[in-house]
Amino acid sequence: MNEIINAPLYRALVHHMEKKSISFHVPGHKNGEVFTMGAESVYENLLKIDVTELNGLDDLHDPQEVIKEAQNLLTKYYKTEKSYFLVNGTTVGNIVMLFSTVNAGEVVLIQRNCHKSILNALAIIGATPVFLSPEVDNTTVTATGLSYKQVKEAVKTYPKAKALVLTNPSYYGYAQDLTSIVEVVHSNDILVLVDEAHGAHFSLGDPFPKSAIYSKADIIVQSAHKTLPAMTMGSYLHINNKELIQKIEYYLQVFQSSSPSYPIMASLDLARDYIQSLTNEKKLTIILSHQAFKRKLQAIEGIKLVTKAVNGNYKIDPLKVIIQSTNKISGYAIQKCFEAYGIYTELADPKNVLLILPLAQINNQEDIIRKIKTALKGVKASNREVSFNTDYKEIHSITELAISYREMEKRSVTERLLEKCIGHIAAEAIVPYPPGIPVIMPGEIIIEEKINEIIFWKNEGARFQGKSNLNTIKVFAD
Amino acid sequence: MNEIINAPLYRALVHHMEKKSISFHVPGHKNGEVFTMGAESVYENLLKIDVTELNGLDDLHDPQEVIKEAQNLLTKYYKTEKSYFLVNGTTVGNIVMLFSTVNAGEVVLIQRNCHKSILNALAIIGATPVFLSPEVDNTTVTATGLSYKQVKEAVKTYPKAKALVLTNPSYYGYAQDLTSIVEVVHSNDILVLVDEAHGAHFSLGDPFPKSAIYSKADIIVQSAHKTLPAMTMGSYLHINNKELIQKIEYYLQVFQSSSPSYPIMASLDLARDYIQSLTNEKKLTIILSHQAFKRKLQAIEGIKLVTKAVNGNYKIDPLKVIIQSTNKISGYAIQKCFEAYGIYTELADPKNVLLILPLAQINNQEDIIRKIKTALKGVKASNREVSFNTDYKEIHSITELAISYREMEKRSVTERLLEKCIGHIAAEAIVPYPPGIPVIMPGEIIIEEKINEIIFWKNEGARFQGKSNLNTIKVFAD
Repeated sequence: MNEIINAPLYRALVHHMEKKSISFHVPGHKNGEVFTMGAESVYENLLKIDVTELNGLDDLHDPQEVIKEAQNLLTKYYKTEKSYFLVNGTTVGNIVMLFSTVNAGEVVLIQRNCHKSILNALAIIGATPVFLSPEVDNTTVTATGLSYKQVKEAVKTYPKAKALVLTNPSYYGYAQDLTSIVEVVHSNDILVLVDEAHGAHFSLGDPFPKSAIYSKADIIVQSAHKTLPAMTMGSYLHINNKELIQKIEYYLQVFQSSSPSYPIMASLDLARDYIQSLTNEKKLTIILSHQAFKRKLQAIEGIKLVTKAVNGNYKIDPLKVIIQSTNKISGYAIQKCFEAYGIYTELADPKNVLLILPLAQINNQEDIIRKIKTALKGVKASNREVSFNTDYKEIHSITELAISYREMEKRSVTERLLEKCIGHIAAEAIVPYPPGIPVIMPGEIIIEEKINEIIFWKNEGARFQGKSNLNTIKVFAD
Repeated sequence: MNEIINAPLYRALVHHMEKKSISFHVPGHKNGEVFTMGAESVYENLLKIDVTELNGLDDLHDPQEVIKEAQNLLTKYYKTEKSYFLVNGTTVGNIVMLFSTVNAGEVVLIQRNCHKSILNALAIIGATPVFLSPEVDNTTVTATGLSYKQVKEAVKTYPKAKALVLTNPSYYGYAQDLTSIVEVVHSNDILVLVDEAHGAHFSLGDPFPKSAIYSKADIIVQSAHKTLPAMTMGSYLHINNKELIQKIEYYLQVFQSSSPSYPIMASLDLARDYIQSLTNEKKLTIILSHQAFKRKLQAIEGIKLVTKAVNGNYKIDPLKVIIQSTNKISGYAIQKCFEAYGIYTELADPKNVLLILPLAQINNQEDIIRKIKTALKGVKASNREVSFNTDYKEIHSITELAISYREMEKRSVTERLLEKCIGHIAAEAIVPYPPGIPVIMPGEIIIEEKINEIIFWKNEGARFQGKSNLNTIKVFAD
């Protein structure tokens, strides 16, 4: 083992692995010795550390030894009051942060373009959501964040609100410095909870946006797996407000597996070590490599990069590359052609293709650029005009539900054709995915503009999570 | 790739891996190319399939392609109405099965020795639990299951109960044929939900116990990772009652990560293929290998195996080996000495050590037996008398909570010394782990016998989940 790795949980697992012990415990693969023939080459090395709460390996739900040590290093690196490993993604982090702070009937201010896990948690809690529509960047036609002015208005209108729930950065990487927003919300005794799924690397500082951790938000959840080298479902939950620790720890063990995955936990330990080991020198090397790559992309005929937000309050995370066609070709068409050449992107929409760069130097830049150039030659054949209305804006700024979550539970549900839903109250969320922002939320009155928006996304080929074919919407019976 | 593997999701991942594509998407390790130096050898092969919802890789929360195909094979193999992959363990399966069937205020009959996830879910839902104490096997002094008579009495007393929640087999492997219980419960229009965490292999039939799937329980959750070769956190949820499908699918996407782990999902696909490929001939070879191993264990001086339940209604899963000392040495002491020789067991308690055998032939039996013999020589030095009261029995057979979950939410909580809790209402569960059975549950009046039981477990060195030092209990203020 490389002695340089400062990751106590990972090291304890390697130490256990090196004992070559005999397993008469779970999991059933017995350190990888029992497995489907032919699939071992992919799994076998990792399964040696896919173990359970053995002596010396601690317990995520009551950490006393190596997991405690690993989480202490996490806490110290991110400079929080307390930080935790999550094994069920930012989804569970969002659920836990709401269960730990909000009770039935309490008002919560919600940035409308939040992840569905926020809404699901609020519905189960029976909270009273007030939705704040985000600003929209007209270059990419995507949501950015909330304006200070709107937040100030909301806390004035709802002084008894329990918490404000923000999503920063956006999926596309738009991020703002939340310090003044946190200050105005805190001065009204309201908590600030931030879904920072795409910002686990913001701790690196400039040129990356500022993390909500350093704007003193109360709880911050980050998908370590999204931008750091951690396994999928590995996330971090950070607390700045120590009054919340007890409840957070209670709900973490409620909603996460009582047999949490050691490989995921150890990858979170390693990911922290990875980012912590990025000295300023290493960081600069990465940034210069990214810049070189972006310049090369920028120079390719037929595409352009969006690197600046229209509104100067926002910056775009340098790890996100937003590509648009200069020939009115849809993002979907570009993504498809890239894939034919082995370049897999994060997402596409009518206008944009989103790439997430590695938190490392990009090797083989010439090869990638060559493939992209070739791919773009192909795309012209399947030319598809972008029809997206760039004047698109949210209609209502601060909105409440028409009926409460508890009331919804009592009503029966019926299904109506899309065009016959207008004026009815929605009984389900309609969420094009990616980017996972609900167009309609349960409990809202369905207005014509929403139907038009749905039809638009549908025609553009977006996938609606949980719906294979979106011809109808579930609404509450009157 | 081995063409014999009939696991569509795994195959699609290998197919994607073989493309050697360039990743500009999550996760941040980019097919394993970005990772902490020195840790690659453990992780790198697996990270190549730790991907996201790319084209061709389907979406767990809206399966249309390979995940649908893989889940269809699962459904077909287990002969259910519909079966699902779970990535957050049986914990999430238990939560989802309750949320899908029980509403606030509704009565639920609960086998008392259930996993804490059942209790946590009921508290959040605000259900009204009625606890049924399990029978106890006096050889091992562990809970087995509910008697038919008790269940019949309970459904008669609580005809409006919504569901009966069973745990079968027990952690130690005691299992009964649930058919008659399911019949009497169903005849009263009550659902039967079964936590079958330790029984994913029961589909193999005799000599393994009968799965609740074939007793026609409505929902059955199995920890594939416990007895099949699946990764930790990989479980199955099975439905026999198709009326529940819609709600189950809704809550599965609520409580599981929106970025589910592909390696875990593919391991569930492979685990199904593994057990399906066990022909009668292969099964017999495994059973004979286990029997030979048990005979060798049985012949070792100083220990005996428990292979039969006192009550003939139960049998002990042949995959579980319960070892006891013939010299009054505690299970903890035996476990510790085994570990010193590299033999890791599943759990120990004052009387027993529990081993879980692989669902495969046991190789190197002589070597293992030799190590165990040597280990047992060491154990005599640290001889420790077993003090466990073998007359231990549950006191109340069918009990309700003193106050409701919703009422508990309103009361303030205080902490009292163990011996000063008698007569107060508990505000937390006290769960020695393993085996994870609550001695006290929130909302119950703390009687003297319970305190004695806690002190006993404490003195025997059990770990109490969520409590590093059990001197106090949280109780509700009057």
